[in-house]
Amino acid sequence: MRIALLGGTGDIGAGLALRWAYDTDHELVVGSRDPEKARAKAEEYETELDSRGVDRKITGFANEMAADRADVVVLAVPPYHVADVVADVADKLDEDALVVSPAVGIGSDEDGMHYNPPSAGSVTELVADAAPDHARVVGAFHNLAADRLANLDVDLDLDTLVVGDDADARNLAADLAEDIDGLRALDAGPAANAAEVESLTPLLINLARYNDGLHDVGVTFE
Amino acid sequence: MRIALLGGTGDIGAGLALRWAYDTDHELVVGSRDPEKARAKAEEYETELDSRGVDRKITGFANEMAADRADVVVLAVPPYHVADVVADVADKLDEDALVVSPAVGIGSDEDGMHYNPPSAGSVTELVADAAPDHARVVGAFHNLAADRLANLDVDLDLDTLVVGDDADARNLAADLAEDIDGLRALDAGPAANAAEVESLTPLLINLARYNDGLHDVGVTFE
Repeated sequence: MRIALLGGTGDIGAGLALRWAYDTDHELVVGSRDPEKARAKAEEYETELDSRGVDRKITGFANEMAADRADVVVLAVPPYHVADVVADVADKLDEDALVVSPAVGIGSDEDGMHYNPPSAGSVTELVADAAPDHARVVGAFHNLAADRLANLDVDLDLDTLVVGDDADARNLAADLAEDIDGLRALDAGPAANAAEVESLTPLLINLARYNDGLHDVGVTFE
Repeated sequence: MRIALLGGTGDIGAGLALRWAYDTDHELVVGSRDPEKARAKAEEYETELDSRGVDRKITGFANEMAADRADVVVLAVPPYHVADVVADVADKLDEDALVVSPAVGIGSDEDGMHYNPPSAGSVTELVADAAPDHARVVGAFHNLAADRLANLDVDLDLDTLVVGDDADARNLAADLAEDIDGLRALDAGPAANAAEVESLTPLLINLARYNDGLHDVGVTFE
């Protein structure tokens, strides 16, 4: 599959690019508002993979170009940019393109991080509202600590949750997640359930803060 | 310690009573609005323990009597009863009594369960507002499936999260949780972080619904 990582220069995008490139044969395209930055990051990922004996071509383009002809578009951008990025690439989204939203709205105070959803109820629902009707939107990869994901020396051994209204799209996203070694995907149901999925992310950050030894903590359901 | 399980006739109360009785020497008192029901349930728990070769005295009283002289009061009641039960027992709460809130506000629609916090922000904060100032309030035990907790044949091997403004109280609640075999307590910080802790419960119910083999699912952070 051709996977476009919009905002693929950021930390969650880096982790997904490196893991998919290392563990699969999917074609990976890094997108950014700045095509030069996208190309530079793509080269950086290639160098990292090459240092591990993996010879992979990763390309970098402006978001619109990256999304063109992609089977899967991952919106690895901050939550307040998500709607704009979807609008930027809407014309490029193929029929049945899978749009994956890993972003979470988070606020903070002195005590910790707090779930701060957009008025749509969740970022997943915001993306579903903003995307063209023919695209299929899921939320996934919210709860993976970026540094742990991007460090190929670390076994993940974690779960991630997939949420969205189209069950076939959830299954496809789950398969893509499980293409990454050590990652298990669980089905969280329709997009109305996304708020409970997304609010796990501030919880994980709070647990990392208040418990020794839980830096970059993830979650397993059993 | 003397632990009063108010609403200890319900399913989460049953699980905590059986686990603490089986794994510890804490004195256990079952509370209910109906003292006859409390006594009947206490006897039922004694019978269950006796069948496993454990000879334990568990008493049953009206909530007010159960809370009297208790070191720890667990509010194992539905979220919409929590404030009333706290008001009922407020006069009986000793200086520095530990008040533990496992309740979660949950709504539902056809897609799944949704976190539905009270106006205080979370049930933990609602209890903190309702309790006398000298009591120490924590939230804990939200995310344990009641049937799994109450079935002593099942190894738990799970985490539970403790949240509340008093760090010493969180530590005490964590110790009490870890007195139960197979349960690890993690610190989620001050009560302002309780919403993210409580919203894990509807998520778990949704995961149990949408994934085969995840009946009575719990969570581990790693």
